[in-house]
Amino acid sequence: MITAIFAFRDDSPKYKQIYEQFKLFIDRGDILADERLPSIRQLADSLQVSRNTTLMAYDQLVAEGYIRGEGGRGYFANELEPLISQGKVILPALKQSESLAPPSLIDFRAGAVDQTHFPLKVWRSIANQVLSLQESYQYGEPFGEMFLRKQIATYLHQSRGVKTNANAVIIGSSTQQMLINLGYILKADFPCITVEDPGYDGARQSFQLHNFMIETLPVYETGADFSQLEHSKSRLIYVTPSHHSPYGISMSIQQRQTLIHWANKIEGYIIEDDYDSEFRYTQQPFPALASIDPARVIYLGNFSKSFLPGIRLSYMVLPEPILKRYIHQFLHFESTTSLHSQLTMAKFMEEGEWNRHIKRMRLVYKRKMQQMVSQLLMQFDQTISIIGEQSGLYLLIKVDLNRSEEWLIEQASFHGVKVYPTSIYYLNNTTDIPIIKLGFSNLSSEEIKLGVELLKMAWV
Amino acid sequence: MITAIFAFRDDSPKYKQIYEQFKLFIDRGDILADERLPSIRQLADSLQVSRNTTLMAYDQLVAEGYIRGEGGRGYFANELEPLISQGKVILPALKQSESLAPPSLIDFRAGAVDQTHFPLKVWRSIANQVLSLQESYQYGEPFGEMFLRKQIATYLHQSRGVKTNANAVIIGSSTQQMLINLGYILKADFPCITVEDPGYDGARQSFQLHNFMIETLPVYETGADFSQLEHSKSRLIYVTPSHHSPYGISMSIQQRQTLIHWANKIEGYIIEDDYDSEFRYTQQPFPALASIDPARVIYLGNFSKSFLPGIRLSYMVLPEPILKRYIHQFLHFESTTSLHSQLTMAKFMEEGEWNRHIKRMRLVYKRKMQQMVSQLLMQFDQTISIIGEQSGLYLLIKVDLNRSEEWLIEQASFHGVKVYPTSIYYLNNTTDIPIIKLGFSNLSSEEIKLGVELLKMAWV
Repeated sequence: MITAIFAFRDDSPKYKQIYEQFKLFIDRGDILADERLPSIRQLADSLQVSRNTTLMAYDQLVAEGYIRGEGGRGYFANELEPLISQGKVILPALKQSESLAPPSLIDFRAGAVDQTHFPLKVWRSIANQVLSLQESYQYGEPFGEMFLRKQIATYLHQSRGVKTNANAVIIGSSTQQMLINLGYILKADFPCITVEDPGYDGARQSFQLHNFMIETLPVYETGADFSQLEHSKSRLIYVTPSHHSPYGISMSIQQRQTLIHWANKIEGYIIEDDYDSEFRYTQQPFPALASIDPARVIYLGNFSKSFLPGIRLSYMVLPEPILKRYIHQFLHFESTTSLHSQLTMAKFMEEGEWNRHIKRMRLVYKRKMQQMVSQLLMQFDQTISIIGEQSGLYLLIKVDLNRSEEWLIEQASFHGVKVYPTSIYYLNNTTDIPIIKLGFSNLSSEEIKLGVELLKMAWV
Repeated sequence: MITAIFAFRDDSPKYKQIYEQFKLFIDRGDILADERLPSIRQLADSLQVSRNTTLMAYDQLVAEGYIRGEGGRGYFANELEPLISQGKVILPALKQSESLAPPSLIDFRAGAVDQTHFPLKVWRSIANQVLSLQESYQYGEPFGEMFLRKQIATYLHQSRGVKTNANAVIIGSSTQQMLINLGYILKADFPCITVEDPGYDGARQSFQLHNFMIETLPVYETGADFSQLEHSKSRLIYVTPSHHSPYGISMSIQQRQTLIHWANKIEGYIIEDDYDSEFRYTQQPFPALASIDPARVIYLGNFSKSFLPGIRLSYMVLPEPILKRYIHQFLHFESTTSLHSQLTMAKFMEEGEWNRHIKRMRLVYKRKMQQMVSQLLMQFDQTISIIGEQSGLYLLIKVDLNRSEEWLIEQASFHGVKVYPTSIYYLNNTTDIPIIKLGFSNLSSEEIKLGVELLKMAWV
């Protein structure tokens, strides 16, 4: 019963509008069976929405059986037998065979986590205990619960070599939110920031909200090019050294030292977003920048990829002068992070469950990554090259088929597979051959196999 | 076992520093038994921290038995018998009789909720269900889960007369966070904002973060004075019409209409913070401003007082033009609010549990409020007057004893009772006679009685 309620999970207002309009058209017979629908491009242009929004609406209609995609020919309405009952249109159960689209979509979305290996029992049990504590009925601390801050300090020391103390650990809800808060502290003294190109678009948006002047550090599949950094105006840089977003590469120890040297020389700061550092499959992770020079590094981590995105739990470690300013600025602001999630996670960490979980998931995701790679190589041979398979919960494929990124995504969608663009990560830097992002963390072995097979059908 | 971990719940870095330093001094014998400690004022001045920080540290030391307060004479170290074991000082169990402070503090803090009447079973059961859903392992929607937004729209219509639809309801983590986000949308067109004086300091801080120019609307125990509003520069006003913070009064329908008229005339907006609207004891609540003219009102509500502060769940309803700008600005930012809390609350509301909870708690809190009033009248007679007893989870007392607010708080603390200042809410407006804030939502009947008796001992 409860699942029925979540029908609208994926709607944005515009998406909803398109989705419901077409449903109505088809229900009312305004669009007849086998009639061709406008192409995604046409519809997006005429409604002035993004193609992605249009695609999402069509995907949903395909999934619900209202329409079907027919390879390159476009989308067509399916035959329905609407029942009018008490003035309300009730949709009959669809005969799956009528639709050319596969009954369920394979969604290569990055950012979900594996549900089957989630330590549901332990987590529930601790969460239930926490809800009995008196502390759970009060407001929490503005910078996060000390119990959790201590656990994170211990974890960072053990696993990332970052020596800090709980007072310098600040709890937040998301990387973006923490970057926005940092913006208030930093923008007066650091009006200019360098970001990776390509790089995490969400971070860029946080800096843009504060009208930082943005410079770029070019990054290639082989690594970043630091040659121009000396000539930049920035005294602040945002990087993802453990697992570059999106390339998935790890910054070499030499590059790390270059960066630290630069920050010291100009008395600037490095914002180190250490996301996905937990899942490195081929070797030990390199030490965090914050472990080399904590005085010049603002360290960011979160539990979204490694545990659960929905609990909204992030943290940062601030060097002394920044910490002082941060506390002064935000002392009178309530925390935005659930007190219960904080205490549950703290207890989960204290009991060693967090380390066990990461260890277990590293194996689970490693197997999935290996399967992704072998399936892709089997199906595609020389037409694709794989990027970033050594760590993280997604990989990239460079698809050398003389097709656009948009075409690849659209064709995949016609075949019931959702894949994701990387063009959103680029500013000035470009790539000739389109690169597609494939997340796999919550797909089963069968789904990975089917998904890659469908991609082959869609593209080749 | 789990409770032992929360020893540091109340520390901020400065507080911790003071607390730990004194503990060490006493443990090591640097401060001898019965030696007088610096006064709160002296210590605060010499360390350059607030008196409240110092008071908190002393309170904690009193509670743990390290020191005692002796009425007006100040604080003194207690006699301890430190045991040296494995190089670590282990504190012996304290003999309670040695300390003049009562064994447990009565804390009249506003902002906690009643734990004994919390619907723990139902909430846990729904929370556990939600954790089994596939949706719980993904990222949530940027503006909140549609399931919850729908439930809130329905609730607002039924209980506050606010007609809206789910798309205009935005989920956030706290009132302050939503005000900060609104700041980005509004500050260019509305550089100046009027706030109530006295008024909610947390809101003011959010506006100050954006460097809004701040004007004030004088508020008295009898109500707000709108006479100067016409001459203000602001086209934006932030008000708490259901339950003024801190006076607890409700804005009359005539005043509401005056405000709406003003906003229409200048084409401005009213930010209506409808907090505590659920707990009105004497009559039906007045309709929300947003129910009178939704086009001119940005409506804010939250679940902190009415349900649980720790889940960090707030919402706002935006008029069309603001909504459009908000969505455009924040479309690419992840929600900061726990997906699980959102879905659990949505289901809780859908099943009617929310309405049941509010109804039940209104009675519970009404009884507590009545007891507070009768105890205060019994102990204090004419020396105090009570403000704001018709609604909300705290009341104010105007204490006419020729003493300062600080003296009253300090004396109460010596007697083991924590009470709170209201001076922090004032900007230009002032009060001759000090006003003390007493929250009672998580105190038992016995605690309320004891607390008021101790206040009498402390003050008279």
